[in-house]
This record gives sequence, C-alpha cells and structure tokens, in this order.
Amino acid sequence: MHFTAVDVIRAKRDGAALTDAQIDWVVDAYTHGRVAEEQMAALAMAILLRGMDRREITRWTTAMIASGDSMDLSAVPRPTVDKHSTGGVGDKITLPLAPLVAACGAAVPQLSGRGLGHTGGTLDKLESIPGWRARLTTEEYLAQLHGVGAVVCAANDTLAPADRKLYALRDVTGTVESIPLIASSIMSKKLAEGASALVLDVKVGSGAFMKTEAQARELAETMVAIGTDRGVRTVALLTAMSTPLGYTVGNALEVEESVEVLAGGGPADVVELTVALAREMVAAAGLNVDPADVLASGKAMDTWRAMISAQGGDPSAPLPVAPVTEVVRAEQDGVLTRLDAYAVGVAAWRLGAGRARKEDAVSASAGIRLHRREGDRVAAGDPILELHTEDADRIPSALEALSGGVVVGEPGTAVAAEPLVLGRIGG
Amino acid sequence: MHFTAVDVIRAKRDGAALTDAQIDWVVDAYTHGRVAEEQMAALAMAILLRGMDRREITRWTTAMIASGDSMDLSAVPRPTVDKHSTGGVGDKITLPLAPLVAACGAAVPQLSGRGLGHTGGTLDKLESIPGWRARLTTEEYLAQLHGVGAVVCAANDTLAPADRKLYALRDVTGTVESIPLIASSIMSKKLAEGASALVLDVKVGSGAFMKTEAQARELAETMVAIGTDRGVRTVALLTAMSTPLGYTVGNALEVEESVEVLAGGGPADVVELTVALAREMVAAAGLNVDPADVLASGKAMDTWRAMISAQGGDPSAPLPVAPVTEVVRAEQDGVLTRLDAYAVGVAAWRLGAGRARKEDAVSASAGIRLHRREGDRVAAGDPILELHTEDADRIPSALEALSGGVVVGEPGTAVAAEPLVLGRIGG
Repeated sequence: MHFTAVDVIRAKRDGAALTDAQIDWVVDAYTHGRVAEEQMAALAMAILLRGMDRREITRWTTAMIASGDSMDLSAVPRPTVDKHSTGGVGDKITLPLAPLVAACGAAVPQLSGRGLGHTGGTLDKLESIPGWRARLTTEEYLAQLHGVGAVVCAANDTLAPADRKLYALRDVTGTVESIPLIASSIMSKKLAEGASALVLDVKVGSGAFMKTEAQARELAETMVAIGTDRGVRTVALLTAMSTPLGYTVGNALEVEESVEVLAGGGPADVVELTVALAREMVAAAGLNVDPADVLASGKAMDTWRAMISAQGGDPSAPLPVAPVTEVVRAEQDGVLTRLDAYAVGVAAWRLGAGRARKEDAVSASAGIRLHRREGDRVAAGDPILELHTEDADRIPSALEALSGGVVVGEPGTAVAAEPLVLGRIGG
Repeated sequence: MHFTAVDVIRAKRDGAALTDAQIDWVVDAYTHGRVAEEQMAALAMAILLRGMDRREITRWTTAMIASGDSMDLSAVPRPTVDKHSTGGVGDKITLPLAPLVAACGAAVPQLSGRGLGHTGGTLDKLESIPGWRARLTTEEYLAQLHGVGAVVCAANDTLAPADRKLYALRDVTGTVESIPLIASSIMSKKLAEGASALVLDVKVGSGAFMKTEAQARELAETMVAIGTDRGVRTVALLTAMSTPLGYTVGNALEVEESVEVLAGGGPADVVELTVALAREMVAAAGLNVDPADVLASGKAMDTWRAMISAQGGDPSAPLPVAPVTEVVRAEQDGVLTRLDAYAVGVAAWRLGAGRARKEDAVSASAGIRLHRREGDRVAAGDPILELHTEDADRIPSALEALSGGVVVGEPGTAVAAEPLVLGRIGG
C-alpha cells in the first residue's frame, strides 16, 4: 500500500483515526528519513491536538518497537519483570527495588536512562559508585540476568530508534505534552526490553511531569492499556511527588540512602514505596513471597552487592563527598508546611546533580540532604536542608530555586499527611 | 524581548492569541533560519487547528511583508489598484481586466505567479505570446506603470520571502488548508505591491480551492479585514467556479479568447466578470467612469497592445497551435447537465497546459476548447469539447480525468443557471 506523509498528516489533522498500515508506514519512513522532520513535527502537533485512540496508541508503540531490536529473554530461567518510574525528586527506588525483587526470585532486566532537568537518572546515581559502568554488551547483560537476577544498565541505541528520533523532535517543537506520545515513548522502550511483566510508578505532583492526579491517571491507564494489548502483565501505581522521596536528592547521596534501605533501615517513605512496588512486581511475576520478609532477611543486600560488583563497581568503596556544603536554617519557630519537590529538584540540579542538556556531565557528590520533612516542627536556627556541591559559585542560584519552595508556618499549623500511594491501575 | 520557538508554539497550541511581539519575532526568526522548519511546521499545524484572530492575522501578514521589500508606488500619477483571483479553470480575467482598468484611468501594478495543479497561471498564459517576457527590472516595471498604466509581471524574490518559505513548508506538511495562513499568504504578496486599492475575486466551486460558499466567504472576509486594517481599500467578489469560465482552458487558447473580449466580443460570462471586477476596481480607485463604455470604445484593446509590446511581446503575432487535437462528442441526444470545472482543469493540466511541480515547463498550445456549456442541448455526435496537446500520449489520461465530469442528461432536463457573482464583501 502506498502512502504519502501529507495524506497521513491530513487524516490526523482532520480528526480521523490512523489505520494500522498508515502508522506502520509513517513510523518506519520517519525512522529511515523518508518522512522529513518537519512532516513528523506537523503530525506530532496534530496528534497532540486531535489525540489517538487505544488501537492507534498500541500500534504506534508497536511500530516504534519494530523500528529497532527487541531483547529476547525467553532463555532466562526466572520470570522477568521490570519497573518504570515517570521520574521524581529523590526517586532512588530502583536501587533497592531491583535487587529486592531479584532476591524474591524474579529476574529484573532494566535498560535505563539518564536524568534530564530537575529529575535524576538511575544510571547517574549508580555511576557515583567507584568503578561501576553503565554500558554492557548483550552477552554481559544476559549473563548477569541469569546469574545475579538483576541488571540496570544503559539502553542500547538499537532499541526503539524511532522513539529516540521522535523524542528529540518533540522536545524542540512543543509536542512533548501529549499523553499518547508520552505513553508510547515510554512503553516502546520498556516493551523492547522483553520482560513478561511491568510495573509502572506514575508520579503526581509538583516534582513530577504530571502535575495533577487526573493527568497521571490518564497516562497510567494509557500505558497499562498498551502493555496489556501487547500481552505484557502491566500494573501502575499512582504515587505522590509533591515533596522529595526520602532525605536525600543527588547521585551519591541517594545511593547511600538506598543502601540504608537494603540494610533494613532508611526513610519510611522510601521503604514503603520500595515494598509496595516490589509486591506488585512479585505478584506480576507469579511468585508467592513477601518482599518485606526478603528485605528483612538481608538477601536483597547480597543481591545488591553482586549486582554492583558484576558491573565493575565496588559496593564497599566510600562514595564521593562534596567539598562544599551550605546549611539552610529555619528563620523562626514553627512547622515546615512546604518542602516542594520541584524547588528541591531544581536546586539539586543547579548544584550539579543534574544536567540541562544530554551532553552535560553530572557531579556524583552534588545534591541536597534534608534535615526536616514536610510537617516537622522546627525551631529558629534548626537546619532544614544542606546543599552539597563541588562548586561554591552554584550555591546562590540553588538558594534562588528554593525560594518559596521551603515554607515555615506558624507553630501548631497542621499539615495534612498525603498518602504515598494514591491509586492503582490494572492487574 | 526574548522568545523561544517552543514558547510561541506552546502558546498557540494551548489556544492563546499570539502577541504582536511573538508574531514579529517568529516570522523574522523563521525567515532567517533561526526558527527551524520543524518548529514552523508544528506552529503552522497549531495555527491550522487553533485559528488566529483578526489582529493576529493582520500582524502575521505585516510581519511577512516586513520580511522583504515593498514597492513604493507613491510617485505613480494615477490611482493604483490591483486584482487577485484565488484561481480557477479558464480564469483568464486578468488579461482583459488589467488593460481595461488602465484604460479607465487607473494604474494596475500586478506582480503575478505561475499556475500549479489544475488552475492556470496568468504568467503562463501571457508567455504563449511570442516574445513576451515575465521578468522586468524595477525600473522597467515602474516605467511601464507610468506609461502604459498596466503591468503584469513576475514577482521578485525579495517580495515577502517569509511567505515563499512558509508556502513551500505548508505544501509538504498538510498545513495548506488554514484560512488565516491562506489569507495572510495572499495578502502579504499583494500588499507588498504597494497598490492603494485591491479587488479580490474569491472563487467557489469544484474548480476552486474553496469548494463551498461558506469557506469562500470566510476567506474573503479575512482578506478584506487584512487589507482594511493595513489601510488599503479592499473589496471581494465571490464568484462561481463550478464550470470553466468562457470557452477555452489553456494558455494560448485563453489569450485568444481574452483578445476577443477586448475586441468587443467573447463569451458572455467572461465579459460579465471582467466588467464586474473592473467596476469594483474603478470605484475603489475613486474614478467615475463605466468600464463597459471604455471596453466598447476600443481603448482597452489599445492598452492591451501597448502592455504586451512594452514587455517584448508581439500582439499581432499568431499564437502557438497544438499539433494534436481530439474531439469529445455527445454519445446521445440530451442536455449537457454537467461540465465540471475540476475535471476540465485536470484534463487541461494533463494535456500539458499546467505543471505538477514548480520547476516543470508548460505547453503554450495545450488545453481544451469547449463547444458546449452547461445547460446547452446536444445531439448525439455533436462535439462537446476538443482536446489540444503537443503529445498524443497525453490524451488517454486527459480523457480519464474528464470521466464523470462531462454528463449528458435526458433531453429536456432543466439545468438551473447559477449566477456568476455570488456575493460581495467590503467596501
């Protein structure tokens, strides 16, 4: 069947559902440069404004997967299950979660990405561990999945190249904020990994991409539909991201906190979310074991050490420490009524923990340690947070980012405790 | 003020009206390559789907005019007035109209274009006259406007370059069909000509770009608003284009028919529309003379000959004649109930009268001569139309284009006579 880019653009522009053949053609032709960037930009805007139905979104995802290689995990002797988070501030959950779920008997094959903007990236965090490397060959990857049961490494360029190209285009053409395009972008990469089950952590709040629960629910439902239609058991949790997770934001700082969780300690919210996601993953993998027990047994810590060692990292080596710190203190007695995830995320980014452009390097030691959480009482002069950086010149702009995001209210002010898990979709 | 392309795209995408400063910036930045093609494609799609209000459209037009040169006609001693047609089949009206209005005492400065697709272009028609050349220097152009009072020539590349670039982009990105973009495209070129008044012939029907009267009216109202807001007296006529104008379609064939009109003969519809548009132009120019009288006086023919001679053409030279003709005859007795403008336009194009791409050459002699018009009685074997071409191989595809477009109904069938002028806007 013969199509032209203009025919496909006009169909979507005028509100039609694209046919399977049109979707297959346009994604393939774009990947190979036969549909020009400006044509895909017009189509992306038409999709953003006109939408796509469930069939179209699944087919679009399938076409993006078909643009590259898919991993074949059929030889892995354990049930395979992965997790994806839409990104938050202090969201180190993958670090304790992957070894925990592996210790429960599943295999966790995670091809991950780097952070951009105010949200951190799992690979950036792991790279703060001396010696650890993100790039594995396919053989190394599969061997680690068989042996250790958990692997978190960089995605290969041959995975969903259509998505890579389209994502860069959307970024410069104002076409990022489309649920069908966001959902198909995430799911094309995750489904190409080849896991049999997938648990999605869809963040809601100021520090998340989705600011409202309604948007997050729509994204979650769309992704669960895609996974289900592709024959992958898919569940999503909606979780709060209005204040940072745990007491640390930044690469080495978050590794340190993750190890505390694996050691049986760590902040309550990080433990709660890790166990909640692990329960979903274990159930989706068809295993009958309680991750809370496995975490308490110390087996997850053993798996963590094996996982880090397998990728060249030294799990016992000291982590990088920032040479410059600055403490932000309460100016009066009262209650910390607001510790905004976005403000803290931007501040950590400006301190060096994140990157503005893909090519930028990140600092392993930069970040923020929280001394108080939302709802805590504070006295004048108490430390609220501590900025860490390699470069003192970055402090002023980090403080500027925090302005309005850290609020101490009158003593006795009640702060409503928001539940961490706001909803569950699928399964 | 500082903008980014993504900010401007997102504003329009989300339904906002663009500010004057945003419009000025984005059109200028696009013209100079600082806004990329894919960014303008996304913006064009957002404009197509979200629309622009009157202020935005006029500002967009102004910014496109400002992207290049404008003609200064203030030294021309006569009132200046031009006409623009949105394009039709057999629409040779500019040829008798420009000399007629000049003979009435106005100056007609027409920078014109070439045909594309099934509608012919005025320059292509005039180039069938031996020796005539479309390219003039600015000095030649102004001298002819002073001396003869009418000039029809090719627009310079320095006129509204933003429109040239945007038009090519819209063509490949499915963003042609936007009234704000169509109106601003036409008006930016016409207003850059510098005439004090403008009469628009907005065609409606199968052979026109606007298929319904409602669409054509919206386009006409939008263009009249732009002209008015820019201080140019602007009037539009909505005219019928469901069947070809006159008895000829094709370059030399239409010149021949135009000369018949200037000689006081010619088809009634061509005469009617020429005089109707001339009356609007003369009135807009503030002159008090009846073009019908001037046409009858022979003065328009004198101006035609002067206008053609001034551009190197020989008004007395025989026009090219096609070596191959094929007559299409009625298969039965009856009434010609349908002689569709689009079908005839496509057939003439395929015979060589038009071009598919800007770079293509056209045949001067190719085209179609009508022997019957809609509503005429025919007997079996009567010629209905006559195909002219330089290449007999083109005949079958021309006949295919006519299929369904030429219909002979039962004898006695009544065909409702559609008025030629359907409406008038502005003034």
